[in-house]
Amino acid sequence: MSENIRLTQTVQKGGCAAKVSATELRQILGQVKFPPVPSHVLVDGGLMDDAAIIKVNADLALVQTLDFFTPIVDSPYLFGQIAAANALSDVYAMGGIPQTAMAILAFPLMNFSQKTIAEVLQGASDKIAEARAAFVGGHSIDDDTLKFGLSVTGYVHPEKVWSNTKAKVGDHLILTKAIGTGTATAALKRGEATEADIKPQLDSMAQLNQILPLLSSEQLGAIHSATDVTGFGLSGHLVQMARASQVKMHLDFSKIPIFKNTLAFLEAGFLTKAHRTNQQYVQDEITMTNLLPVEEKVLFDPQTSGGLLLAVDAKASSSIVEALKKQFSFASIVGEVLPEQTVTRLEVVR
Amino acid sequence: MSENIRLTQTVQKGGCAAKVSATELRQILGQVKFPPVPSHVLVDGGLMDDAAIIKVNADLALVQTLDFFTPIVDSPYLFGQIAAANALSDVYAMGGIPQTAMAILAFPLMNFSQKTIAEVLQGASDKIAEARAAFVGGHSIDDDTLKFGLSVTGYVHPEKVWSNTKAKVGDHLILTKAIGTGTATAALKRGEATEADIKPQLDSMAQLNQILPLLSSEQLGAIHSATDVTGFGLSGHLVQMARASQVKMHLDFSKIPIFKNTLAFLEAGFLTKAHRTNQQYVQDEITMTNLLPVEEKVLFDPQTSGGLLLAVDAKASSSIVEALKKQFSFASIVGEVLPEQTVTRLEVVR
Repeated sequence: MSENIRLTQTVQKGGCAAKVSATELRQILGQVKFPPVPSHVLVDGGLMDDAAIIKVNADLALVQTLDFFTPIVDSPYLFGQIAAANALSDVYAMGGIPQTAMAILAFPLMNFSQKTIAEVLQGASDKIAEARAAFVGGHSIDDDTLKFGLSVTGYVHPEKVWSNTKAKVGDHLILTKAIGTGTATAALKRGEATEADIKPQLDSMAQLNQILPLLSSEQLGAIHSATDVTGFGLSGHLVQMARASQVKMHLDFSKIPIFKNTLAFLEAGFLTKAHRTNQQYVQDEITMTNLLPVEEKVLFDPQTSGGLLLAVDAKASSSIVEALKKQFSFASIVGEVLPEQTVTRLEVVR
Repeated sequence: MSENIRLTQTVQKGGCAAKVSATELRQILGQVKFPPVPSHVLVDGGLMDDAAIIKVNADLALVQTLDFFTPIVDSPYLFGQIAAANALSDVYAMGGIPQTAMAILAFPLMNFSQKTIAEVLQGASDKIAEARAAFVGGHSIDDDTLKFGLSVTGYVHPEKVWSNTKAKVGDHLILTKAIGTGTATAALKRGEATEADIKPQLDSMAQLNQILPLLSSEQLGAIHSATDVTGFGLSGHLVQMARASQVKMHLDFSKIPIFKNTLAFLEAGFLTKAHRTNQQYVQDEITMTNLLPVEEKVLFDPQTSGGLLLAVDAKASSSIVEALKKQFSFASIVGEVLPEQTVTRLEVVR
């Protein structure tokens, strides 16, 4: 770090935990009269959180997404990397390949050196380059607290879009990264953990969800549905996929990859507002059997730049996990897709 | 307005005036090592302020831009309209047609009603619809002060891009909207003017810079270079075009369209930080002859959703202004393009 400034100490709220809750957002959007969605918009941003798909021609569609947040880590370069990986992730979650990125930057001119801001941009630029996309511009304003993120556009074949509407009964559920970044960054912010203590979580958040190059076309064809696990937690994103695909999700808690110190952090009470709102978001649609209270919190832990959640043909699940493990050491089969049932969208057992 | 909340009273800095100055931005970006710009990126966002052009194929390029700011007006619906028109403007300034927009939204959950935020989004949605683009998503976070804007993608033919690099000696300079929104919104924020007092400025900021439908293909062909006048003021954007096109700009002050109360507002000292930084930005490259001090400030007034500045073939300038006047009553020929000269990029006379 260039200065003795700890980014997390400059803000009240951090990362995806600071986003507006799904419930509040739905209430606000319910009061807006939007025009009908044109037919070339194949997937609408809907809840203002996922990527949109816009058909350009028979062979090409744009994947568009936008994400930004306040610092969740102390090192400027790392913050830039994570914010970029997080924004790029929504394109990967739709099966797309990122093409361009624009910066959304707000910072207090008075409190930060130019070098700190340059390091944030360098972290983002390096991740965008790793994704082989182009950093084409952006906008910056003078603001009370640092905020950074990207607007990303990717390309995808209109018939090869991964949506969260196509999970099939019998599919296996694969998660590519471990859970626990929310409580880890809460511990960091409170000074109860150092960046060294949570290095696996930091490395995970900075890793691009770039799984396409790891899989054969046969394996890719076995992926029916995908999403990325971010602010709404594993439970929230599973319930969203269950609703959209009209199925029920069955999760085996013992198979969920979890960072080593996550249960200890949760037990110590390193929580964010999102732990509570994420629980509220799914409480009418989730059943949990034989889980300790602290284990339940794992399901609600808000992730920043979390893993991909894939619903795949059961016959291909083992080979896909094997292939993913080359770069995603935590990749695991965590459950399966069951027929739709009254009320319950997600059952978690151990 | 839905509540007795005046948006401008909720923030310290307003509109484009709150953006990071060009000088500071250049210093920061100078410390970042960006990879080489790929060849399919025809225009790079460069100073993080203009639109980028990305070639998709021989017939299609994407125009991408992103802009957001704090409230510069009190009414939520109007703020949404102006923020949207301002962001869409960068696509129009490149000769493009807006296709998609994503929202950048930050607001204090505690201080604003959901209705206020819904009205901001309604204003934006209505302007996006007027531009015949699709509102496809976005991201919202809980923040101390309201900020709103859009990331916009448009289409343009790769060979019909208007850049600011092609102003030709002998061209006439056309400005489509009057100058003076910066000092007007400063007066509003200080309570020295009401929204009724500055209605022409508000209407102007909310108007889309959609000039393509007004012009014949012959007239369009006569447009050599274009930009939109925003935060850097008329002087800043003229100097940028002069630098990029390697010419000198000659401006006749008496021909600049100016809102009726602008000189009075400037005389009264309703200024922003940008009035000063905009002057600094051009001070080594501008000469002003026979201008009163208050008139000089007109040149530095930061515009939000300002007009287009066009460098056009002198033979077509009158017919273009005639055509523009159908929807842009202030459209005027304000000067001409002269050969490049040592040091001076912009001369203003009266």
